[in-house]
Amino acid sequence: MPTIDLNCDLGESFGAYKMGMDEEILPFITSANIACGFHGGDPLIMERTVALCKVHGVRPGAHPGFPDLNGFGRRNMNLSPKEVKACVTYQIGALKAFCDSATIRLYHVKPHGALYNMAAVDYKLAAAICEAIHDVDDSLVLLALSGSEMLRAAKECGLFYASEVFADRAYERDGTLVSRNQKGAVIEEKEAAVKQVVRMAKEGRVRAINGEDISIKADSVCVHGDGRNALSFVKRIREELAVKGIEVKGF
Amino acid sequence: MPTIDLNCDLGESFGAYKMGMDEEILPFITSANIACGFHGGDPLIMERTVALCKVHGVRPGAHPGFPDLNGFGRRNMNLSPKEVKACVTYQIGALKAFCDSATIRLYHVKPHGALYNMAAVDYKLAAAICEAIHDVDDSLVLLALSGSEMLRAAKECGLFYASEVFADRAYERDGTLVSRNQKGAVIEEKEAAVKQVVRMAKEGRVRAINGEDISIKADSVCVHGDGRNALSFVKRIREELAVKGIEVKGF
Amino acid sequence: MPTIDLNCDLGESFGAYKMGMDEEILPFITSANIACGFHGGDPLIMERTVALCKVHGVRPGAHPGFPDLNGFGRRNMNLSPKEVKACVTYQIGALKAFCDSATIRLYHVKPHGALYNMAAVDYKLAAAICEAIHDVDDSLVLLALSGSEMLRAAKECGLFYASEVFADRAYERDGTLVSRNQKGAVIEEKEAAVKQVVRMAKEGRVRAINGEDISIKADSVCVHGDGRNALSFVKRIREELAVKGIEVKGF
Amino acid sequence: MPTIDLNCDLGESFGAYKMGMDEEILPFITSANIACGFHGGDPLIMERTVALCKVHGVRPGAHPGFPDLNGFGRRNMNLSPKEVKACVTYQIGALKAFCDSATIRLYHVKPHGALYNMAAVDYKLAAAICEAIHDVDDSLVLLALSGSEMLRAAKECGLFYASEVFADRAYERDGTLVSRNQKGAVIEEKEAAVKQVVRMAKEGRVRAINGEDISIKADSVCVHGDGRNALSFVKRIREELAVKGIEVKGF
Repeated sequence: MPTIDLNCDLGESFGAYKMGMDEEILPFITSANIACGFHGGDPLIMERTVALCKVHGVRPGAHPGFPDLNGFGRRNMNLSPKEVKACVTYQIGALKAFCDSATIRLYHVKPHGALYNMAAVDYKLAAAICEAIHDVDDSLVLLALSGSEMLRAAKECGLFYASEVFADRAYERDGTLVSRNQKGAVIEEKEAAVKQVVRMAKEGRVRAINGEDISIKADSVCVHGDGRNALSFVKRIREELAVKGIEVKGF
Repeated sequence: MPTIDLNCDLGESFGAYKMGMDEEILPFITSANIACGFHGGDPLIMERTVALCKVHGVRPGAHPGFPDLNGFGRRNMNLSPKEVKACVTYQIGALKAFCDSATIRLYHVKPHGALYNMAAVDYKLAAAICEAIHDVDDSLVLLALSGSEMLRAAKECGLFYASEVFADRAYERDGTLVSRNQKGAVIEEKEAAVKQVVRMAKEGRVRAINGEDISIKADSVCVHGDGRNALSFVKRIREELAVKGIEVKGF
Repeated sequence: MPTIDLNCDLGESFGAYKMGMDEEILPFITSANIACGFHGGDPLIMERTVALCKVHGVRPGAHPGFPDLNGFGRRNMNLSPKEVKACVTYQIGALKAFCDSATIRLYHVKPHGALYNMAAVDYKLAAAICEAIHDVDDSLVLLALSGSEMLRAAKECGLFYASEVFADRAYERDGTLVSRNQKGAVIEEKEAAVKQVVRMAKEGRVRAINGEDISIKADSVCVHGDGRNALSFVKRIREELAVKGIEVKGF
Repeated sequence: MPTIDLNCDLGESFGAYKMGMDEEILPFITSANIACGFHGGDPLIMERTVALCKVHGVRPGAHPGFPDLNGFGRRNMNLSPKEVKACVTYQIGALKAFCDSATIRLYHVKPHGALYNMAAVDYKLAAAICEAIHDVDDSLVLLALSGSEMLRAAKECGLFYASEVFADRAYERDGTLVSRNQKGAVIEEKEAAVKQVVRMAKEGRVRAINGEDISIKADSVCVHGDGRNALSFVKRIREELAVKGIEVKGF
C-alpha cells in the first residue's frame, strides 16, 4: 500500500502574537515542522507545540530559520556555511530539549523560508545544514525539496532524508519548482492540486508545466496551517488519498 | 584527599563583541559555564567554546540567563516560573546540541546573573529551573549557590547538585552571601580570599562576617574569567590548593 | 462644552505578526499611542500607523515600552532610571522621525505596559520618563494614569500632561485603580462603563468601589483596539458622549 | 585653504560589550558616525557618545545599519527598499532624539557595513536611504562612498552629500574601491596611505591601482576607531595635513 506523509509548519506564534491554526490542523497531519525561536516561535510556544504533537500522535521536527524575527526568516541573509551550521545546530538542540522533556522523539529537520530556498540551490549551505543535523543526531531525517541540493548533500553526508513535494505548486521538467514570478507557478484550482498529490504519491509522477510527464519522489506533502482554506484543503486531500488507497503516515 | 572544582563563566562573547579571556583561563579550571545566547554567547561562540573545553579537558555546563542581551542578563525580569522553565529548557538544549556535535558530555547547569540571584531566594523559580534540568536530562548536575533555595529545590526534585562558593565574597552567619551593598561584602585582599577557599575546601568551614565560624559545603569555587587579576588569582589559588593537598577536579 | 479625548494603543503588529484592528478603530479615536519597536511595532508598522493617523486626523503619540518583545513589554524589568530615560528617548525619537517624514506633529507620549504600571507608583522611574520627554521636545504631552506618580513627576518637571482614565476599571477612594487581583476591579457591564466615562468627563467625578463619590481628572479615556467588543464599545461611548453633549477631541 | 573632514564610526559598544576607543579617538576627528542600535550601539551608549561629541566639538551623524546585531551589520540582508527606508528613518530618529536632548545638531547620516556596500552599487537601495534622510530632515547630509550610487541618488533627491574617501584602500580607474578579494586592495604601508589622503584632499586626485591618475572628490576621510594602530595613524594624518596646509574641519 503506498503511503505519504503530510507535513505542516507549526509553532510560529511568538509571545503575545498568535499565528496559524495549530490546534485545528494537527489532527490531519503526520509531521510538524516546529519553529525554533529564530524566525518565529519562543520557548513557551515550542513547549506547547511539542505537547500538542504528542497528544495528536504527530511527529515533531525542527524548523530552523535565519535569525530574523522581523522578516519571519523570509529574507535572504548572507551567512557563511559555518554560521549556518552553528545556527541550525543551536535550533535543533533547543527543540530537541523540549522533545526530551516531553519524552517524545525528535524525528526530522526542515529548514525554513529563505534558508530552505537558498540551501535548495546552494550546495555549500545545504552541506552545512546536513552536517549540523548529522553531527547532533544521525538518526534525524532531513525533510527538503524534492530534487534539491539539500537532498544531494544529505546523500553525500550519509544523512537520512525525505523528499518534499507541494500540492499547489507547478513543476519544471527538471523537477524544480516553477518560480513564483512566473505565470502558472501556483495551482489555484483545488481539485487539480489534490489530483497532483494523489498522482505524486501513487505513481511518483507529475505533469510538468511544459506538459511533459516527469518522475518525482514524494515522501511528504507540505500543507499550510494558516489561511482560510488550509483546513478544508487538508481534509479534502486526506479524503481523496483514502479513496485512492494511499495511507497517510510519517515517512 | 579532599577535592574541589574550579568553575568559570565562559563563552560570553557575542558576534563581533569579545568578552573574557576564555583561552587563557581554560587551562586552569575544571568546569565551564557556557552562555547560551540569551544574555551572551551566540551559536558560533558556543561551538567554539565547547571545542575549547574538549581540548582542555574542561567539563562544559549550560549557563542559561534571562533573555536580555543588552542588560547581559543582570537585570531582574519578572518571568513566571513557567516561562523560566521553558527558557532554561531551550538554552540547555541549544548548548547540549553543540556538546553532542563535539561528542563531549554536557555535565551541569548553572543559572546566570539575575536569574541565579533571584532563584537563590525564590523557591518557585528555583523549582522551575530544577524541573527544566531534570526533564531534559536527569543526569545533569545543578551548580548553584551554597545554602540557596536552588539547592533545596534540586534535592526535592531528585536532581544532582553541587554547592558553589566564592573566594572573594564574605558570608553571613546563616551561610548566605553578604549583600554587595554592605561594607565588607567583597574580600579585596587576595591572600585572604585564597585562604578562605582552602579552608572551605579542606574543612568545610568559613569565618562569617560577624566573626563566627560556620560550616559550608564547597563543591566548586567560582573564579572570574575577565579583568586584570583573574588569571593571576586562579593560578595563585591552584598553587595554594596544591600546597595544601587539595585536588582540583570536577565535582 | 466639556470635551474628552479617546486614546488607543496602536501599531502593535510586528513583521508577519498582526495584532489589533487598527484600521477599524482609528475612525473613532482622537489619540493613538504607537508602539515603537521595543515591546511591539517595527519600522514599517510605525510608518504605516503614522500614515493612518494622518488620514484619520488622529493625533499620534509615542508608546515606549521595555525592550521585551517576547513578553510584549508586560513583564516588569529592573532597569535603572538612567536606562529608562535612554530607552524612552530612543523610542520617542524613532517615532518622531516617522511623524517628521509624514509631516504630522507628534503630540504625546504614553508609556506602555509594565513601564506604565511601574512608573505609576515609582517616582524615580516617572521622573526619568518625564525628563526623557522634556529633553527631546518640551512641547510633548505626557499621557498617564490619573493621580499617578507620573503626573506628579510631569508637574515637577514642567512637562505638559494629560490624565488618563479607564472606562472599565473600578477606582479606589484615593483615585487609584482597584488592583486586578481584587473582586470588582473590572467593570464587566458595558452600560455601567459607558456611564462612568460620561460622568468622569462631565462632572469630573466617579463612584469609588467603596461607594464614596470622588473627584477625578479625566482628559482622556483609554479604549481597547483589540478583542471582539472593542469596536462596538467605542462606538457606544461616542454615541452616549454625543447625547450628553460632550465633545470628543484631542487633549 | 583646502579643508578635509575626518570621520570615524563610534558608539558601537553594546550593553556590557565594549568596542572601539571612542574617547581616545574623539579629539582627533571632526565627524562621528554613531551606531543606532541595529548593528551596534544601544540607548545608553548613544546618549554617552552624543555627549562626548559635544564635549569634543565633533559633529554627530547617524550610522544606520541592518537589523543584525549578531553579524554587526556586516552580512548582506535582502531587505526591500521600503524596508530599508523605514529602518533608516527609525535609526536617524532614535539618534536625533539624543542630539535634541543634548542640544546639539545632528549633521549627517552614513550607512554602515553591508548596507553601505550594497547601497553603493544598488540605486534603488541608495534612493531609499536618501529619501529616508530627506524626509526626516532635509538639512541632513549624506556621507557616502565617492563615486557611488548613493551620491548619485542624493543628487537626484536634492539631498546634501559629502564624498567619503579611504586612506588605506586602493582605487580602480573608475573611482571605485578595489575589491578586498583582490591583491593590493589594502594599502598596508602607513606613509603611502597618508600621502594618498594628502593628495586627495589637496589635488582631488589619486593614483589608481593600474597606475593611472584619476580625479576623486574627497570631502571626508574615514579613519578607524579600533585596532592597535588606529590612534597613531589618525595623529600622523593630522600632522601631515597640517604640514601641507590642509585644514581639518567638518564638511
